[in-house]
Amino acid sequence: MDCMAEQLLSQNSPTKRPQVVIVGAGFGGLSAALKLRHIDADVIVIDQRNHHLFQPLLYQVATAGLSPADIAAPIRGILGRQANTRVILGAATGIDPVARTVLIGERRVPYDQLVIATGARDAYFGHDDWAKVTSPLKTIEEATTMRRRVLIAFEHAEDAEDADERRQLLTFVIIGGGPTGVELAGALAELARMALARDFRHIDPKTARIILIEAGPRLLATFPPRLSDFATAALRRLGVEVRLGAAVTACDKNGVSLGDQRIESRTVIWAAGVAASPAADWLGVAPGKGGRIPVLPDLTLPGHPEIFVIGDTALVSGTGGAPLPGVAPVAKQQGAYVARIIANRLSGKAAPAAFRYRDFGNLATIGRKAAVVDMGIIRLTGRIAWLVWSLAHIYFLIGFRNRLIVAMDWLWSYLTFQRGARIITGGDES
Amino acid sequence: MDCMAEQLLSQNSPTKRPQVVIVGAGFGGLSAALKLRHIDADVIVIDQRNHHLFQPLLYQVATAGLSPADIAAPIRGILGRQANTRVILGAATGIDPVARTVLIGERRVPYDQLVIATGARDAYFGHDDWAKVTSPLKTIEEATTMRRRVLIAFEHAEDAEDADERRQLLTFVIIGGGPTGVELAGALAELARMALARDFRHIDPKTARIILIEAGPRLLATFPPRLSDFATAALRRLGVEVRLGAAVTACDKNGVSLGDQRIESRTVIWAAGVAASPAADWLGVAPGKGGRIPVLPDLTLPGHPEIFVIGDTALVSGTGGAPLPGVAPVAKQQGAYVARIIANRLSGKAAPAAFRYRDFGNLATIGRKAAVVDMGIIRLTGRIAWLVWSLAHIYFLIGFRNRLIVAMDWLWSYLTFQRGARIITGGDES
Repeated sequence: MDCMAEQLLSQNSPTKRPQVVIVGAGFGGLSAALKLRHIDADVIVIDQRNHHLFQPLLYQVATAGLSPADIAAPIRGILGRQANTRVILGAATGIDPVARTVLIGERRVPYDQLVIATGARDAYFGHDDWAKVTSPLKTIEEATTMRRRVLIAFEHAEDAEDADERRQLLTFVIIGGGPTGVELAGALAELARMALARDFRHIDPKTARIILIEAGPRLLATFPPRLSDFATAALRRLGVEVRLGAAVTACDKNGVSLGDQRIESRTVIWAAGVAASPAADWLGVAPGKGGRIPVLPDLTLPGHPEIFVIGDTALVSGTGGAPLPGVAPVAKQQGAYVARIIANRLSGKAAPAAFRYRDFGNLATIGRKAAVVDMGIIRLTGRIAWLVWSLAHIYFLIGFRNRLIVAMDWLWSYLTFQRGARIITGGDES
Repeated sequence: MDCMAEQLLSQNSPTKRPQVVIVGAGFGGLSAALKLRHIDADVIVIDQRNHHLFQPLLYQVATAGLSPADIAAPIRGILGRQANTRVILGAATGIDPVARTVLIGERRVPYDQLVIATGARDAYFGHDDWAKVTSPLKTIEEATTMRRRVLIAFEHAEDAEDADERRQLLTFVIIGGGPTGVELAGALAELARMALARDFRHIDPKTARIILIEAGPRLLATFPPRLSDFATAALRRLGVEVRLGAAVTACDKNGVSLGDQRIESRTVIWAAGVAASPAADWLGVAPGKGGRIPVLPDLTLPGHPEIFVIGDTALVSGTGGAPLPGVAPVAKQQGAYVARIIANRLSGKAAPAAFRYRDFGNLATIGRKAAVVDMGIIRLTGRIAWLVWSLAHIYFLIGFRNRLIVAMDWLWSYLTFQRGARIITGGDES
């Protein structure tokens, strides 16, 4: 398989062109690939999905605000006109740093320069059994599954004869008070209180309980405390029960326990933690915090200047010494940075200085009218922050079409409180 | 379950209000429900899905032009403000005409007036094993499955080392030259020749073969012959191989046989025939052509003036004596008609005259620039027909939002040849 690929590629020039392989087409990998479009090398992008996913808006798919295709763009479509680049749809299963090949099952893809940008997956902090009873939110399928579960819970509550059962079905627990948890809680509250308000006859969706559980002392721990307080107050105004300093001690299909206290719920959503993809295992290196791979200041693996690790997979310290957060801007800047190093190497130029993250700010939204924006000096809350948040997200969505559709979906939701994607599809979990 | 439902309903008035049950929220059922919004009765709409589906555009989802939510609207959302109506999400499993109840598994929903609008399903003309090896197109899930299969076929062809295998993967066979087959063939041709044209490196999607097989002597048999000829020519211009008078004699996962001739293909799409839903079985009546239930001129079941059958489930003769086709306008007009009868009955007015279908015309589109429109006197082809087709479909899509989004998706596709929903999700069938 790869033999053929290699031959086809090497036909282009009598001396073999260097091969740059990028594993993962998330924000980091895609940013690197796009910056490498003019280099005299073969660029190969490997991803297990055919689409790049705009993960920050995944919660909108899970709460029926957007359709999957609104926040996903085909990788081949993005890179199709980039003549030096080809895309392989396949799941990397390992790396052989000695033979310099990436493994996709039996298939071997050789590299001269390698960029590992495989992202993160959910982590359950030693409670892997919780994965079975909670809904995670990392992929399109997980988002549509969550959407189905939430909408079906209302349907079953409408049919339930038993008051306790109805209460359990109408109780939604979100574990984790980071941006994903906060945004999900706000969107769920609006779904129940507005979009679904008139849809049922036996239940009142407005009575649904949405409980956001955070083990730490405040929501949005990476934001300044004032913005955390604002988010908590804004969520409470939407009717969300915010429980701070509350650690989940048990979790099963009928609810969660916080020490002595029990919350019965049929829908428990996991937004509490992520760990890096298994790239550390592949390379046989000892992972750092969160399974991330410690790298040198130029984002290479110690002893392997030809291997770069970026995004959620890399452990890099920021200015204050704390690890850089696993957010899209970090990954994008790192992707662009390693592309510059690779381009310089191939053209014989000097390497750029060590990677430095330029933090343009943090944003999180709470429902359809409020958000918090932390841009260092400028800290915004409320409606103006919501506007900044909306514009920023629409701007960064890949593809002009997606921007238009998302803008229209938002405008529509804003004007009508309706949710356009409120359809139940897929598996029958009744 | 239904006891509670009944009690809740009967609390409204000391004397029990009549109960009108509509099974199926397709074009027919929904049209009936909407027309009954002012009657003094309890209207119950039962559907196994939570959404009404605009089936005429399902082929656009299957070919990555539209997202599922663009052509589906939540039934509760459509009927939510209609105070006399409630919606039950559940699959009807039978009807007891003596006890006057609809069965949903163990649950029983009593009726005074019943409207059966359960639609059609695919029919394989005695070759039920073909269902396993072909892709049908009746539901959202079938459309996204077809989309995944088609897109994955291109991905596998890109990776295939064997020329024969590549050819099989790039051969798409559509069985059935009615509107669905014609529209699918045109959309697939454009997907391969335009949207995907630059996406691959080892294959040229433009070389994909799209073969449309029709057993009869011409495509679009219900249209005037001149329009059939136009459609055939338009498809051939798009590169579709149209085989007329060709009956499929065998069908397996590697292709189809037309008598002696064999076409190797990994993707065979079934657009050849439908049969009515199993309502005839439920009622214990002998079904007519296509499993449809013969009804009286007022669309009631003989001997049961309280049971109406409409849409694809009903066998009704048109002016020429031929059965009315299973298309949306017939179902919608029948739904409105039976609503009028029911309203008249409940208010003591005389029944309207026998149902008469007013045929406003037939439309089918071939790719992004041509269509055929048959409105009796007016027969259009080409670009002007395409415009009429687009406007008609956008107009009839339920919900203002959907109209906007679909209009934008089309405009976008038209201007750029791109397909917005080109994402692969769900099951891994590699």
